[in-house]
Amino acid sequence: MLRTFELDPQLAADTFEVTDLGVTSVRLMNDARWPWLILVPRVSGAEELFDLSPSQQEEAMREASTAGQKLQAVTSCTKINIAMLGNMVRQLHIHVIARVEGDANWPGPVWGHGARQPYEQDRSRALIAHLRSVL
Amino acid sequence: MLRTFELDPQLAADTFEVTDLGVTSVRLMNDARWPWLILVPRVSGAEELFDLSPSQQEEAMREASTAGQKLQAVTSCTKINIAMLGNMVRQLHIHVIARVEGDANWPGPVWGHGARQPYEQDRSRALIAHLRSVL
Repeated sequence: MLRTFELDPQLAADTFEVTDLGVTSVRLMNDARWPWLILVPRVSGAEELFDLSPSQQEEAMREASTAGQKLQAVTSCTKINIAMLGNMVRQLHIHVIARVEGDANWPGPVWGHGARQPYEQDRSRALIAHLRSVL
Repeated sequence: MLRTFELDPQLAADTFEVTDLGVTSVRLMNDARWPWLILVPRVSGAEELFDLSPSQQEEAMREASTAGQKLQAVTSCTKINIAMLGNMVRQLHIHVIARVEGDANWPGPVWGHGARQPYEQDRSRALIAHLRSVL
């Protein structure tokens, strides 16, 4: 019997809903230090990329790649970082992060660096609206 | 005119050759702290995943996913980390890393943590031979 997909509670608490694509749900990390999307494949029980079927893998990575390209256009960033780690939260999720020279912890990674800085509500609402219009 | 693909000199210095797959070259990071593969798409000038053609993206990610699955089988690790960052070395490359609870910097990321620990030659040769037999 298929289990219904449920978003991991930690991901739900740390992110805002943006939009649903074909196989992934796009969310915005509530951390104003970096424009940071999280794409969650809506596939119950998946923890590794290879837990998805070949066609789900293709679709999820195509969505991540396109989201990265759009995020680069929106932010004029130096580099897009795309990563699937899952050491803390096991539910498969794809980080898509806009990095610029001189940002918090550039050129190091974003994970494990300092404390999350939640958005002011006006800023997250405006960014989410902008992201929805391009994704 | 097509430019011939040349491996970035920093990647060449930090890694050992393992094998060539369809679109990527698989290399082993010379850091004994983690079993750590680097897959480099043999596409000149690519820095972002979306710099590859759609079919190259599919093939590169399929190779990374399969390499991760094989690396998990070889190492019995807790979690595979797959990432494309490129903040330091811009040539597109895909990290595929085996992580276990209690490893150096678990559950934090591997990048920017402490100093690289080069393999003893016997160990790297044995691991490369093993990886060649499964990839």
